[in-house]
Formats: sequence, structure tokens, C-alpha cells
Amino acid sequence: MTEYDSLEERIQKRKEYYITQLQRLVRQPSVSAKNEGIRDCALLLKEIMEEHGITTRLLEIPNANPVVYGEVRVRGSSKTLLFYNHYDVQPAEPVELWRYPPFSATLIDGRIYGRGAADDKGEILSRLAAVDAYLASGKDPPCSFKFVIEGEEEIGSINLPRYAEKYRDLFQADSGIWEFGGIDNRGRPIVSLGMKGILYVELLAKGPARDLHSSLSAIVENPAWRLVRAISSFKDHKDNISIKGWNDRIRKLTEDEKRLLDTFPYDEEEVKKSYGIASFINDLSGYALKEKLYTQPTCNICGIWSGYQGPGSKTVLPSEAHAKLDFRLVPDQDPEELSLLLRKHLDENGFSDVQIVYKEGEPAARISHKERIAIAAAKAGKKAYGVESILSVSSAGTGPMYIFSKELAVPCVGIGTGHPDDAQHSPNESKRIDTFVNGTKWVAYTIQEFASSS
Amino acid sequence: MTEYDSLEERIQKRKEYYITQLQRLVRQPSVSAKNEGIRDCALLLKEIMEEHGITTRLLEIPNANPVVYGEVRVRGSSKTLLFYNHYDVQPAEPVELWRYPPFSATLIDGRIYGRGAADDKGEILSRLAAVDAYLASGKDPPCSFKFVIEGEEEIGSINLPRYAEKYRDLFQADSGIWEFGGIDNRGRPIVSLGMKGILYVELLAKGPARDLHSSLSAIVENPAWRLVRAISSFKDHKDNISIKGWNDRIRKLTEDEKRLLDTFPYDEEEVKKSYGIASFINDLSGYALKEKLYTQPTCNICGIWSGYQGPGSKTVLPSEAHAKLDFRLVPDQDPEELSLLLRKHLDENGFSDVQIVYKEGEPAARISHKERIAIAAAKAGKKAYGVESILSVSSAGTGPMYIFSKELAVPCVGIGTGHPDDAQHSPNESKRIDTFVNGTKWVAYTIQEFASSS
Repeated sequence: MTEYDSLEERIQKRKEYYITQLQRLVRQPSVSAKNEGIRDCALLLKEIMEEHGITTRLLEIPNANPVVYGEVRVRGSSKTLLFYNHYDVQPAEPVELWRYPPFSATLIDGRIYGRGAADDKGEILSRLAAVDAYLASGKDPPCSFKFVIEGEEEIGSINLPRYAEKYRDLFQADSGIWEFGGIDNRGRPIVSLGMKGILYVELLAKGPARDLHSSLSAIVENPAWRLVRAISSFKDHKDNISIKGWNDRIRKLTEDEKRLLDTFPYDEEEVKKSYGIASFINDLSGYALKEKLYTQPTCNICGIWSGYQGPGSKTVLPSEAHAKLDFRLVPDQDPEELSLLLRKHLDENGFSDVQIVYKEGEPAARISHKERIAIAAAKAGKKAYGVESILSVSSAGTGPMYIFSKELAVPCVGIGTGHPDDAQHSPNESKRIDTFVNGTKWVAYTIQEFASSS
Repeated sequence: MTEYDSLEERIQKRKEYYITQLQRLVRQPSVSAKNEGIRDCALLLKEIMEEHGITTRLLEIPNANPVVYGEVRVRGSSKTLLFYNHYDVQPAEPVELWRYPPFSATLIDGRIYGRGAADDKGEILSRLAAVDAYLASGKDPPCSFKFVIEGEEEIGSINLPRYAEKYRDLFQADSGIWEFGGIDNRGRPIVSLGMKGILYVELLAKGPARDLHSSLSAIVENPAWRLVRAISSFKDHKDNISIKGWNDRIRKLTEDEKRLLDTFPYDEEEVKKSYGIASFINDLSGYALKEKLYTQPTCNICGIWSGYQGPGSKTVLPSEAHAKLDFRLVPDQDPEELSLLLRKHLDENGFSDVQIVYKEGEPAARISHKERIAIAAAKAGKKAYGVESILSVSSAGTGPMYIFSKELAVPCVGIGTGHPDDAQHSPNESKRIDTFVNGTKWVAYTIQEFASSS
């Protein structure tokens, strides 16, 4: 019997226990956006972790949700693996669209339904279960573990940088496993090596002191016009960001990264069908499409509003115009520097009246596929699923991975128990029991591969 | 005693009666936007007009609010003067901001408060009172009168063109008095010779079948971007409309019109203060400012909306983007032709995906200050107020004046009982008794001047 077989045996044997623990955790609401159940959930998680044999405490800083911090120290092991997760969840609304109450953790048809069942409580339990499978053997695990489980991921991890600064030593490790990951539609494990960053701003243009009759637009500047013109100056007609200096720091892809991107599977027809679109921007396809999606910056209008939005033909010159924009960033762009370039662009193009409100900024993170944890995760994925793992240069999305991968020098990979039909952030979010078990195996095997690598 | 003195005497003598009639009319709600009280108001108005000795009937066409049509035929008179007014009113909302119930017609401090007291029931009564002042003398009035009082002005006079076509003969007259007008802040009577036209459109850009995660903006076209870019192509940076052919038909100002515009009083500092702005578009002032406001076309964003407008930093790629635009038109622009030019502009500039919904179109109207009715109104204004009348080449606003001034060849001028503090369309709309009486005199004197002109 190999080490893998015995890990699998222990995971299968204690499956019901893990599922029950996951249900306990899902039944405790922890909606950070509404400050609902946060501390109760942190305390419950601490209790569950302690039941798993993990030394646990709450880290606190003022005006922030607690971080649940856990450790398993193994004497004689030289390596430490860190798990980053979050115990807060998205709001459950619209509640009426749920088949089962969102915090009921109803187990039916091989799934646990509930807000947070997948994102991220299922992943938390898979990490606890993987570590438990080692501890249950009675022998020392092959490495030490750290758990950093925050309570503000769904509201932008706003205090995680402060936690990382204050608890820099506690957050140190040799490598890390990110809060999510999983298999694709065809059951292939995806190992994600990075995430994009973000700069999120609100733009505000102000006009007359109150809404005016629209006949006055002949002589009174309309702030909606100011805003529309300002925004339209941000990109050229080929969808390239044309703000001066914006692209100067972009790190070039290595030949290896280009190769990974080239072989990364992307079902264009399926995606177009799913999104209801006839073509991609600039009719992109193949390598160029994937390169843009995973490794190039974006400038997106998340929202824009001004004036009258109701029925009929109201004639008004609005007094204000607003927009929300997100810029996705890639290594090595710096959100604070870019926000200054944006200000400069507006000033130099005659839009000094357009105000910028800086809402959020996170750099991107991307590690090499040659990092020990990346190699371990890819090998372990193949052992858990029986098919080759696929290395993803970066997710198109954003997370605070840079704090670990870049600032603390803890290279992280995204792996986990996820499946494309988990319905994260949507009504009827669920965790499939089969992917939960397989993903747990993947995490457990990754620990083994990581610990035995040299 | 002159004819003017006896007219004034009769108006003063019967003032209480007119005020009581105005209160009756205001107390009958007639909100066309909500289809509230329309027919009851039309019937009440018919009753009041008949009490004034006017032969009255309701004109009807399918799916339209009735037009109240009245006539006073004077044998032996060769001239007919037409009064255009409307009995429908704006909604009273927000009702909580009214000091007195909006349909109470409360008479206090020299004003009647109520929705429609000024716009346009006060004006209706002033026309009835002016005609009554002639009829009450026992002699024949100096000309015949027609009343065309519609019930859909506040919803864009949507059926007035059909009424004008069906009742072309009834709507014929030698000249007309428009539904509103009055004095400025310094008590000077303003005779308005025209109104701008309008083209009101909604623009719609569609993207993916549902809102997507904004990370996909790298490869999926964002409809808000399409819309912002399309709209920003409509004007150059000097605020000139750059749609091909848009300005081709604009009628040049005559030397007389330029002179009127040049001498037209416009208190720039007062206006800037009132609107809370530091300067006008392009730092315009003097003649150029008035020329743009009263005689040049506009392109205005009344509303624009797409995506997320709530608090926080939601990252979304919206599936649709909308805008409402009004283009004010001047003689001799044609709204239907312009809507085709707009379509062509979008198609030729790569925005064939942006849809146009045509909501409303009205040409502009402008008559010469040498028209008999203009000369009569200016002379009468001076007699009623003791100061020179001011001729306004055009209002900056829009109304269906073109139907009369242009299509039916009934040149109209805007005069009336209005005062800048009437609060039309706002809470606490009121009609001042002093301007009601003076404006009624102005209308009565205009009748005299018009009838005696050759």
C-alpha cells in the first residue's frame, strides 16, 4: 500500500465526518458585506480546527474582521506549507431563487447546497481534511502547516495587507496553497500560477448645482458629456489602453509561459455560446485570445450613470455623472502609480474637472511553473485525477495573492475542490461531494509531493 | 375714456369672477402622464367656456385626450385670432413638498397655489377673461376667436399633429397667441417669436446575454464602452455637432434677428449664479452666448446608464447600456431626416450595433418680428406694463408651435401672465394675481392692436 493509497483510505473513511463539519460551517452565516455572523463563524471555525488537532487563535487588528490563524508544527521537518482561505461569504440574495434555504447546508443528490459551501468553506474543509488524513495516521506529517483564514475576502481583503504587515512572521512559509482551484469541464486539474491585480476607481464629473432644463445644454456644460469624453480617451479603437505610461512596466512573458499559454485548453465556441456573443473583441482567437485574457491589462466600465433613467422622454441636463471602472493589472504594474498616471492623463487631456475616487488597488501575482509548489501540485493532480494537470499562467481574475507570492515571498498555487457548476456567488451554490473528496485527495497528495521535493 | 381704459375697468371689475373660475379649473386634477381627471377637466373647461359665452365642443380622435375647441364668431370682422393652450398638467409629485394640497387652489398672499395654476390653467383663464372683457361691453369684439385647448401638452402633444390634420379648417386663423409668455425679472414684457424643435432618441447597445465577471472584459466587448464611444463621436471638442449633414439645413439669421438677439437682455452673472456654474461652455458671453442658446442646435445627454450603480466595488461587465439624448433643433432642421443622418453616422463610424429608438420629433418654429401679431403684442405689452416690450427671436425650449406657425400658416407669438417665480413643473406652483391681471390686460390689448392693424 503506497502512501497515496493510505491517504485516500483515511479520507474515504472519515468522509462523513468532514461533510458534517462542512455543514456546521455553512450553517453559520458569515456575510462580510452585511457584517452578519462574522465573529461567530470565526469562533466556530477555531473550534472545528482545534477538533482537527490544529493549534488555532484569532488574530485581531482594530476595525477589521478577525483572521483565524492555525498551525501544525512538525519537529524535524524543514518545510512549511501555508493555506490561504476565507471564512466570509457573499450575501445570499436573491434568496427567493434558492431551492433550499441558503444557510441550511442541505445534502441532496450528492451535493451540499448553501452559501459558502463552495466559496470558500468547502475549500477550507478540504485543507483541514487533507491535514487530518496525515494526523489520523498517528505519524508526523511530512511538513509543518499554517492556516491563514481571513474574514474579508468578499469585501476586497481590505485589511489583509495590514494583517500581513503586523503578523509578517506568522505568515512566513516556504510555499502556499491558494483559496480556490479545481477541475475544468472535462475533469482536468488546473494548477493556477497567478492572478491579475486591480485598480478600481470611481469617476465623478460635476456640472450645475442642480438638474437643469435640457434646453440649457446649449450653454451649460453637461457633466455626462465630460465623463463620456474622458472615458472614451482611455482606450484606442483596438482596445489598447492609451493612457501614457500605462503599459511601461508590464513584465514580458517568458518562453515557458508562452508555451503554457499556447497549450492551455480554451473552448472558444463553448465560451461564445455560454456568453451569448458572436465573436470576441477584435475577432481574437487562439493564442492571441488567451494572451489577452490571462496576461494583458483591461479597462472596464462596471457602471455608468447620470440623469434620467425612467420611462418616457424627460429633458434634463444632469448635475452629476458617475462611473465605476476596473482596470485589471498584470505583473509588474503598480496600482498606486497607475492611479497617478490616470490623474495625469485626465489633466493633460482637458479633464482636470473629472474627479477620481480611488476605491481599491492590488498588484498582480504570478509565479514560475518551476516553483517547487507548482511542480508538486501538477504531479499530485495527475495522481488524484488520472489525467495530466494543466498549468495556467494566470487566472483572469483578481485576488490578494501578491501579498503572499510577492511581498512575503511565499509562492502560491491555486488548486482545490472546485467544479465549473458550483454556482459560486449565485443562488443555489453547492459543493459536490465527489469533487470535494477528489480535491481533498489532490491537496493531500500535493502536501506529500511538496514535502518530498528537494 | 379710451378702449384700453374700459377694457381694464371691466377686467378689474370681474377679477374675482375670473379668479373663482381659475380655482374651479385648478381643483379639477388633469394629469395626462397618469391619465387622471382628463375627461372631467375637459368637460369642466367646456362648461366654463360656455359660461363665458364661447361656443364650445370637444374634438375627439381615437386613443387621444379630447381637444376643447371654442369659437366666438363676429359677423363683419375679417380677422380671426387663435389661442393655443392646454388643460393637462404635470404630476404634482413630490406632494410632500407642497405647502398647500396641490389641487386645493389655495388663495393666499396674492397667489393661487396649485398644480396647473400657472401652467397652463392661469393662461387659459387670462384668454377667457380677455375675450370676456370684450363680450361684457355688450358690443361685438373687434375680431373672431378660436380656442384650441389640448390635453396632452405635458406628454409631448403626441396627438396634436393628428388633430391638426383632421380639423385643419377649424384650426385656421390669421394669427395665434401661444400658451405661455410673460414678464422677466425686471417686469419687462417678452414677446417670443419662436421655439426650438426636438429630436429625442434612446440609444441601446447590447453585449453578452447576461452580466459577466469583469475580468472577461479582456475579450468580450462591453456595451457601455460601445455606447460611450458612439456618443462621444457626436460632437467635437468645441461643442459642435459633428454628425455629417446635421447642420446643412440651418436657416441663417436675418440682420433683424441678429439685431434683436444683440439687444436682448441676458444677465450672465445672474444666470451663472443661479445655476451654480463658473463659466459657460467655451467661455461664451455676449452675442455669441445668446446666439448659441436661442438659435443653434444642441446634443444633450439626458440620461445614461449601464451596469452597477450601488455602493462598493462590484466588478461586472454589463450586458446592456442605455442612453437618452435630446437634440434641440432650429429652423429648418427636420427631425425625421436627422434621425436618418444619426443612423448613417453610427453605421459609418463602426457603431452599426448601437440601436436607435426614435421617441419624439418636432421641428422648430420661428416667425418674423414684422408679423402683424408680433407688432400687436409688442405694442400692447408696452401699454399694459408701461415699458418697452422685448422681442425674443426664439425660446431655447421646445413646443408644438410649428404646427401652427409653420404647417397651418398661423403665425404665433408667446405672451401671457407668466412670472419667473411661478414655479412651473415644481412643487408650490402658483399664479400671482397681479401678473394674472396685467397679463390679461396684455392679451386684451393685443387683441385690440391685432384687430385694428392693417
